Amino acid sequence: MHQTIQLRTHNRCELVDLTPAISEVVKKSKVQEGVCIVFVPHTTAAITVNENHDPSVGSDISNTLKRLAPDNISYDHGEGNADAHVKASVVGSSRTLFIEDGRIAFGSWQGIFFCEFDGPRRREVWIKVIKD
Amino acid sequence: MHQTIQLRTHNRCELVDLTPAISEVVKKSKVQEGVCIVFVPHTTAAITVNENHDPSVGSDISNTLKRLAPDNISYDHGEGNADAHVKASVVGSSRTLFIEDGRIAFGSWQGIFFCEFDGPRRREVWIKVIKD
Amino acid sequence: MHQTIQLRTHNRCELVDLTPAISEVVKKSKVQEGVCIVFVPHTTAAITVNENHDPSVGSDISNTLKRLAPDNISYDHGEGNADAHVKASVVGSSRTLFIEDGRIAFGSWQGIFFCEFDGPRRREVWIKVIKD
Repeated sequence: MHQTIQLRTHNRCELVDLTPAISEVVKKSKVQEGVCIVFVPHTTAAITVNENHDPSVGSDISNTLKRLAPDNISYDHGEGNADAHVKASVVGSSRTLFIEDGRIAFGSWQGIFFCEFDGPRRREVWIKVIKD
Repeated sequence: MHQTIQLRTHNRCELVDLTPAISEVVKKSKVQEGVCIVFVPHTTAAITVNENHDPSVGSDISNTLKRLAPDNISYDHGEGNADAHVKASVVGSSRTLFIEDGRIAFGSWQGIFFCEFDGPRRREVWIKVIKD
Repeated sequence: MHQTIQLRTHNRCELVDLTPAISEVVKKSKVQEGVCIVFVPHTTAAITVNENHDPSVGSDISNTLKRLAPDNISYDHGEGNADAHVKASVVGSSRTLFIEDGRIAFGSWQGIFFCEFDGPRRREVWIKVIKD
């Protein structure tokens, strides 16, 4: 079974740092070597690995994707969140991380982020820890 | 060995819902808990997870990516499908899904789509089901 | 433990073909059937699978992403490489490949590329080979 992290977003577009929450799931699994797969069960949100030292990286990603898929132009999908669906496919629904010595092996500046494109909403992230 | 799904696309750019076909591969594997990795062995196509209730989400994704990489501007790659290669890297060649209780664990509105960017063509998708 | 490939990039934006280096890691692992997960431990670089017969595909990807995230506009992130962070999230930090008969199962024209968005730099790619 996967583990579930519940979260609440507060803006239409927002990156939420899940590094502490996902690290806790990995720690509790007691897996020393393996992989951690993170999956977003939503179609207007995504998951990404990026810098978690400067929060402005998140707003730069949101703003750039907004230029790619503006929320005020005409789309075929009629629910007013077509831009969010497009952004979800551009960033992607899953990421795989390595576990070493009982924790996630990140590069120096990396963290893992939930990308909200159609908030504010209650959301979930699913996590699977697989032992080598 | 991977399993192979054969498909035929009918337009230059098109999203094809592979949810039923991939679900069938998972069912036949008889794996109850595990992961399903989907890989596209083409360089002008990709795989994405998105809403499968409204087909217009697919055309919105195609049209937005066309604005990012138009097919009528000049590229270095001389085969007339440079835009398709770019789109393939933006959306990505693989996705990982979770298997639970013998089937793919999707969020409420999710399905998995083959993204054709240089059709119409005969295409393949490769699937690997891994038991926990 | 993961395996590490060290590389040096020579331009600000550049795609480096890692197919031979990653194939060598897989060969040395002696795994016959399994998966190979490639992870980039950097926040201004990414990994992609695309055509490795024509190097101009790489420059088309770089140039298109530059139109999406130009390096000469204003961003919130103040280190002058915000565009590189954005591109990293668009392309993605990990890719999964299948191993069959002791080597990576690619489609006819596929290779795997390190995407440099803020070079030139010394970089690393991490690889994990998992037996079925």
